[in-house]
Amino acid sequence: MSQTRGDVWSPVIMPFGADLAPDARGFVSHCRWLASHGVGLAVFGTNSEANSMTVAEKQGLLAALVEGGIDPARLMPGTGHCAIGDSVTLTREALAVGCDGVLMLPPFYYKGVSDEGLFRYYSEVIERVGDSRLQVYLYHIPPVAQVPLSLELIERLRNAFPGTIAGIKDSGGDWSHTQALIERFGGGDFAVYAGSERFLLDTLRAGGAGCISATANVNPGAIAGLGANWQAEDADTRQRSLNTVRDLFERFPLIPAMKAATAHFSGAPGWRRVRPPLVELDEERTGELVSALEEIGFRMEGLEEASHG
Amino acid sequence: MSQTRGDVWSPVIMPFGADLAPDARGFVSHCRWLASHGVGLAVFGTNSEANSMTVAEKQGLLAALVEGGIDPARLMPGTGHCAIGDSVTLTREALAVGCDGVLMLPPFYYKGVSDEGLFRYYSEVIERVGDSRLQVYLYHIPPVAQVPLSLELIERLRNAFPGTIAGIKDSGGDWSHTQALIERFGGGDFAVYAGSERFLLDTLRAGGAGCISATANVNPGAIAGLGANWQAEDADTRQRSLNTVRDLFERFPLIPAMKAATAHFSGAPGWRRVRPPLVELDEERTGELVSALEEIGFRMEGLEEASHG
Repeated sequence: MSQTRGDVWSPVIMPFGADLAPDARGFVSHCRWLASHGVGLAVFGTNSEANSMTVAEKQGLLAALVEGGIDPARLMPGTGHCAIGDSVTLTREALAVGCDGVLMLPPFYYKGVSDEGLFRYYSEVIERVGDSRLQVYLYHIPPVAQVPLSLELIERLRNAFPGTIAGIKDSGGDWSHTQALIERFGGGDFAVYAGSERFLLDTLRAGGAGCISATANVNPGAIAGLGANWQAEDADTRQRSLNTVRDLFERFPLIPAMKAATAHFSGAPGWRRVRPPLVELDEERTGELVSALEEIGFRMEGLEEASHG
Repeated sequence: MSQTRGDVWSPVIMPFGADLAPDARGFVSHCRWLASHGVGLAVFGTNSEANSMTVAEKQGLLAALVEGGIDPARLMPGTGHCAIGDSVTLTREALAVGCDGVLMLPPFYYKGVSDEGLFRYYSEVIERVGDSRLQVYLYHIPPVAQVPLSLELIERLRNAFPGTIAGIKDSGGDWSHTQALIERFGGGDFAVYAGSERFLLDTLRAGGAGCISATANVNPGAIAGLGANWQAEDADTRQRSLNTVRDLFERFPLIPAMKAATAHFSGAPGWRRVRPPLVELDEERTGELVSALEEIGFRMEGLEEASHG
């Protein structure tokens, strides 16, 4: 996986057809548009509704991306499932199409599980995959998975699998935790990514790698711009400007709102669809979102052309 | 599905081999032993580590059960997954092997989802399965899934799919909620099952159907005995005796403790294994469990013979 300080990744939102089947063509187009703005593709993340898709659907989409000309070095697929067998299958598939970095959720059904149990889960997956190219990025997202990854667990995994445990995405929303991760593990061969661009500048200044953020789906150029220019004089101004957009989207349910914005700016209304248990943004709320975006002059540059290209 | 007032079901624990593959032969034997004690088989439940298995593994096990002579009318497989496609696949498979009742978790990755989203999830699954034999038992288990099923949602689903929404398992652990479910929906064509035998007598007296309980894996005869004799004079004594066993098991992590007891009484040490993220009971704790069980004269009658039969 190609990785540099200041990296920005998007957990790519997923277009579905009227029958809720994945729209592979729309997905590839959106990935191309994101890549053209310098954003890496953390496909099959929380914001991708990945857990609402079957393993077979995700395998098909990986193949479509690579066939569609997406550079596998710019992909970081989410491959963690509750069942070890599923995590192994999708991780192997990712390696087979040329990715090496994967973002791996812990098994998220049982709650209050021990570090020992989580260590065994990750160990089993890594050993069964058995491929020295594999780079595992751990996925810490307690607000959703409800299964946190402790510092002790990370330490133990790094010691057991040096060269394989490559980093972490911290979607806990608590800057002091991201800071603790960077202080203890950051720099060198362990990449700490903030789970929101709200912490991008702080993360980079503290020695972290960048961010993997939902709203990089809708505001990729500006976020990647800060990632590339975090040492520039205008970095704080850029960060404030990113926060304005993030604040606006956070006034709505995030996934439906990003999809509604993408539908609006691409001219492809199907983008509004989500899979249950999520619900799309209704017309009234969509109107509010679009007005608010227009008020701050927000656009998704080149999206319409990309969608019809 | 054959169902009578006083029904007791076991979310069947799952034996795994040294390589953690499902031990289909041991599973069928254990199901036979449970059935011989009058307990129905709610295979692929929380206590079955079902979410730690792939859909393909569960399909294979369903086939093994039916080939092994288990009456499909006494099966209530868990078929709810985060992805609609997976829920549809396993539900169809259950119907194909002759089951009609299935126990269906809500999608459990996203938290704080709306009733509308959950309604759409269950509707999609039911409509895609498209089989009038289907009987859906909803699975309310907020302590684990963290996605509760509201009374309004149940009402809406019953109205939309009369004859299909057949009941609920309430594993919330809060008797007043089970009571509210029975008062609002119970009796007639909607079966309310308590999620623990601790509430079995209360449930039956209030008009509920019975229980689907973890510890019916280890104490099946006594629990089914109360189910069959809940109107007998000694019902309260029976309930107290069930509670003593339940209390004892609850002093330990429940799934590992039930498996350790099954290993002990069957003479098959492999029963101790669990899949990550769970961890088996260690030797010291197993010793404590066995001593405590011996102290109250607890046995798993006929298990050793059944395991080697």
